[in-house]
Amino acid sequence: NVFERFQPKIPPSFQDSEFVFLANASPVTQLSVLDQVRKPRFVMADSMDLWIRTANQGLLDLLRRIDGLVINDDEALLLTGERSIIRAGKAILAMGPSRVVVKKGEHGAILFTSEGASPLPAYPVEDLKDPTGAGDSFAGGLMGSLALRGRTDPEAFRTALAIATVTASFTVEDFGVRRLLDLRKDEVDGRLRRYASML
Amino acid sequence: NVFERFQPKIPPSFQDSEFVFLANASPVTQLSVLDQVRKPRFVMADSMDLWIRTANQGLLDLLRRIDGLVINDDEALLLTGERSIIRAGKAILAMGPSRVVVKKGEHGAILFTSEGASPLPAYPVEDLKDPTGAGDSFAGGLMGSLALRGRTDPEAFRTALAIATVTASFTVEDFGVRRLLDLRKDEVDGRLRRYASML
Repeated sequence: NVFERFQPKIPPSFQDSEFVFLANASPVTQLSVLDQVRKPRFVMADSMDLWIRTANQGLLDLLRRIDGLVINDDEALLLTGERSIIRAGKAILAMGPSRVVVKKGEHGAILFTSEGASPLPAYPVEDLKDPTGAGDSFAGGLMGSLALRGRTDPEAFRTALAIATVTASFTVEDFGVRRLLDLRKDEVDGRLRRYASML
Repeated sequence: NVFERFQPKIPPSFQDSEFVFLANASPVTQLSVLDQVRKPRFVMADSMDLWIRTANQGLLDLLRRIDGLVINDDEALLLTGERSIIRAGKAILAMGPSRVVVKKGEHGAILFTSEGASPLPAYPVEDLKDPTGAGDSFAGGLMGSLALRGRTDPEAFRTALAIATVTASFTVEDFGVRRLLDLRKDEVDGRLRRYASML
């Protein structure tokens, strides 16, 4: 229950952030963070089953105020009551965000926009050591790429998703954040090229 | 047990086939079919858990005589004793075939060649009615594309896998073979273009 009384204060130097990622927390906490950012250009959030079950109204309020949502496949089904991921993704689009990324773990992810559903396979990892943090580093790679390019159109979003996929593929190769600590840009670029050639 | 005494005789007009697909049957039956084809250029086989458990030696003999194998993910693990699909695919390459396609149902497939592992997502189907026959029509689309182009190099194989993926996406939209009966070439081509643009 470490989050129960967590009231994050955004430092002044971050209050003018254009790209905002609301990591998994209660929707009330996420909204309070968002309210402290003056003029966000692109807001993405993560969520989880706990908030879908216990804070459903807050989550629905949040969904109307964000541009993108990343969510696990089982949570997308839980949130929408659908039995198919494809239907669930479309249903979440109707709840607010214009970009919905449904994550399927080792099977990759599916991007939903008004243009339809685009599947994205995971990068094949031979020696998976620890999946912890895969989702968070996926979101980090995604937001980092969007912010770096300053673009959020579907094409830029797909490129950002490829970078997200590759980032997560490194994370799972060692425990915790170990593999990320000494990860070099050229390693990411190399794997990104191999990923593109696979597709 | 309809297959127990099944001894297929290949009609003379098919004995000079260049592209041969050995659909799922006992390895003994598959090998007896293969022996009736004079000079096959590319031989692909399907298999299943029953033969892995009950006819393992026959299956290992078969693997040394074929160029490609399509197999489900759980069966690839069973056949190799590996716990990761990526390791299992590589282990099957070492058993003989130069092309191994591990099928993951709604999550797509992974192609293994000497160049490495290439993931291929499934085409997003909104209204899945019946997955029966998805694997067989996937194999049919794959072999049809290879035979039509007369090429089996990695690039041609990846294109054939895309056609296989799209073919299977139609199959599951109705019961049995219903959807395939009136399927038009332009529908396949249209979905193939959309699939390419998604990736």
